[in-house]
Amino acid sequence: MAISDIERMIQLLAKVPGFGPRSARRAALALIQRREALLQPLAQALADAAQSVRDCSICGNLDTVDPCSICDDPRRDDKLVCVVEGVADLWALERASAFRGHYHVLGGTLSALDGIGPQDLRIFQLLGRVRNGHIGEVILATSATVDGQTTAHYIAEQLASTGVKVSALAHGVPVGGELDYLDDGTLTAALRDRRSV
Amino acid sequence: MAISDIERMIQLLAKVPGFGPRSARRAALALIQRREALLQPLAQALADAAQSVRDCSICGNLDTVDPCSICDDPRRDDKLVCVVEGVADLWALERASAFRGHYHVLGGTLSALDGIGPQDLRIFQLLGRVRNGHIGEVILATSATVDGQTTAHYIAEQLASTGVKVSALAHGVPVGGELDYLDDGTLTAALRDRRSV
Repeated sequence: MAISDIERMIQLLAKVPGFGPRSARRAALALIQRREALLQPLAQALADAAQSVRDCSICGNLDTVDPCSICDDPRRDDKLVCVVEGVADLWALERASAFRGHYHVLGGTLSALDGIGPQDLRIFQLLGRVRNGHIGEVILATSATVDGQTTAHYIAEQLASTGVKVSALAHGVPVGGELDYLDDGTLTAALRDRRSV
Repeated sequence: MAISDIERMIQLLAKVPGFGPRSARRAALALIQRREALLQPLAQALADAAQSVRDCSICGNLDTVDPCSICDDPRRDDKLVCVVEGVADLWALERASAFRGHYHVLGGTLSALDGIGPQDLRIFQLLGRVRNGHIGEVILATSATVDGQTTAHYIAEQLASTGVKVSALAHGVPVGGELDYLDDGTLTAALRDRRSV
């Protein structure tokens, strides 16, 4: 029997992060059984997204327009640029409504192990934005991992000559977090950066 | 901001069984970042499946042809019909290559709680197949749950007048299963149905 449409759909679903062969099969069956309500709209939405989504040429965000709706929003503070590793981080900050400036998506972190150097990230573009624009502060919001902090350190060094103000996210106790479960590094940072109340 | 293609894609992905809002977002991002390799082929595969997949008018299986490729396969024994609750069960039996007869998909189980009666399942069609065809044996492969066994019992009663041989799956210790972890019902059944070696 030639590979059927159902089998091909399962094979492709199984490649989607979060699915394995078994859950892809279950999802495929559920989709087929809800053809009109779910399968057709989903197929259309995926095709639309494949067609319309592009990288923002300024910040690297994903959007259906270029420049993206964040870079293009006049109500946002264009003197502030928040540097993140990936679009997922940008989305997380946007969900939190924590930031009303602009972004710069690096597309990863420096990693000697994986052979990712500065030329593989959008660091050069960031320097260009700082040199050509009227940016007042760059906030480094890379992950608190070794690679993330190495990347932040490298970018801070590169930015030093431009005279722009460079800051980084605070370390500390997560809101709702219990001290008992926190690692030593976080506790040390939270104590060091304690604030008067 | 109007709801974007990305947001609509995430909302639809979140309705797929196995995904929640969070994992749908992660999957959407991964799909967008692999536009050519994954997103476009997946959109096409889903659209193809939505277009081509239909219910088999004989057995209720899902396939791109009607009658389905199992009903239409002359190498399969058309004297044997295995009754299953859903297409997922049919797929499981096919994966195991455990059965070379035909199937009949009920589309669920009788359930007084959910108000599902015989008219909601494909029981009438099964009786028709048995009365009109040359079926020699009906194997009841419903789940070993209360609803599944109630359904099997009801079907067996309905088939009694036709004179067809009716059988059911064996209960017992799952292959690879440890006695220690088995429930009393399974152990009792495995003892009762013991076989000489």
